[in-house]
Amino acid sequence: MLILKLGGSVVTHKDKPFTPHIDNITRLAAEIAEADAQPLILVHGGGSYGHPVATEYGIAEGYREPRQITGVSKTHQAMMELNGIIVRELLDAGVPAFAVSPSSFIVTEGRRIIDIDLHVVERLIESGLVPVLYGDAVLDTMQRFAILSGDQLVVKLATGLEVERVVLGSDVDGVFTADPKLVEDARLIEEFSLSNHGDEAKIGDALDTDVTGGMLGKVLEAAEAVEAGIEVVMVNATVDGRVRAALRGENVIGTRLKR
Amino acid sequence: MLILKLGGSVVTHKDKPFTPHIDNITRLAAEIAEADAQPLILVHGGGSYGHPVATEYGIAEGYREPRQITGVSKTHQAMMELNGIIVRELLDAGVPAFAVSPSSFIVTEGRRIIDIDLHVVERLIESGLVPVLYGDAVLDTMQRFAILSGDQLVVKLATGLEVERVVLGSDVDGVFTADPKLVEDARLIEEFSLSNHGDEAKIGDALDTDVTGGMLGKVLEAAEAVEAGIEVVMVNATVDGRVRAALRGENVIGTRLKR
Repeated sequence: MLILKLGGSVVTHKDKPFTPHIDNITRLAAEIAEADAQPLILVHGGGSYGHPVATEYGIAEGYREPRQITGVSKTHQAMMELNGIIVRELLDAGVPAFAVSPSSFIVTEGRRIIDIDLHVVERLIESGLVPVLYGDAVLDTMQRFAILSGDQLVVKLATGLEVERVVLGSDVDGVFTADPKLVEDARLIEEFSLSNHGDEAKIGDALDTDVTGGMLGKVLEAAEAVEAGIEVVMVNATVDGRVRAALRGENVIGTRLKR
Repeated sequence: MLILKLGGSVVTHKDKPFTPHIDNITRLAAEIAEADAQPLILVHGGGSYGHPVATEYGIAEGYREPRQITGVSKTHQAMMELNGIIVRELLDAGVPAFAVSPSSFIVTEGRRIIDIDLHVVERLIESGLVPVLYGDAVLDTMQRFAILSGDQLVVKLATGLEVERVVLGSDVDGVFTADPKLVEDARLIEEFSLSNHGDEAKIGDALDTDVTGGMLGKVLEAAEAVEAGIEVVMVNATVDGRVRAALRGENVIGTRLKR
């Protein structure tokens, strides 16, 4: 089983509110169809759909005032709208995608998923469908509501199901030795080894100079899946063919996370 | 706690595919806001959104051929689209509505809900939100997929939560002694008593002459809630003020189901 994460910067124009990146979505739907790598689960980020609404109402920080309550719903509505666009493009490309709402079955505890009931996702896969989930506004036992990131969701799905490979698609090639936009001789790290002891400080040191796209957060989040023996590959999903190759298990430009 | 069901004939123009009945939806959103009867759960039907797609692919009958698989997803997409319209109208009217996807947490067994995990719905209510669910295409353990009717969902929510009153809103006034469109002296039954022994045949006899709007099915489905001591009122949601009055517990033209 494979999981493909498509970041918000891939599926939306990040600086234009409520603007899907239709070119990327259509191309990636075709790549996913061509890779024919089922069983597959898709998870996408919020980009210019979820983020502006969530920020306007301060959803990530939890409950402070009553007006936030409708903001939780509006964030979820925005995400469902983006999800609907992606699912329809996948169906048109021949991928039997099926929309799954994280907030309809997941409650977090202090922003973290404590336990997750995967029976619907499992049954969708058994039925030959491709579940499509997303980062979502969810209810939280400690702060009333929270933002569940697509990255956290990916790791919970990967460790809860029999997943061999996770492909994390963003708008950068992977983890660099330094910020490639600032440092001329910044080099892509093709194999990035996590400390055997899961030493977060060490990872932090290594990535301190890499400020592109919150890579540190992504690597730390993915560490749990890597520790569980799951292959994690970070690729640039905005470049033609990379996601298709990664789904097929072919050699591809990107960063492989290793234990 | 109250549950309001709005039938597909109320929220859509039933004979025009993919046409929401915006006038009804807007008016009912205002009535729900005015009734101020929280905690409240809303459930709506599919009407001209879910039904044509589900029929095209034969979703209700379960798996027969591969092309149905995308039909399950398309039925769910159609329902989410209608749900999005209703949730947005409710938010605009000041009702803190929150969309919940039945297919994301419910699997049926031979078209029936066997057990249902209500922790998300409960937490939404605790947070002051109004969960909005709907009849949906769901996965089924016996026939792979099925249509979960809004009516079945209402009864499972009512009996699983501490619900006092269920308001079933359709486009007819309630249960009649005969079909009011055919029989001139057809009379609205204001209090309809179910047999003490849950004798379905008896109910069937009584409703045999009433062919309006599948009332027999609705009454049989609601019987489980009535038996559990929950007040069930059937009203005409297309008539101004009836839903508001029913939510407030006022006397209203309609049919009350009694044990």
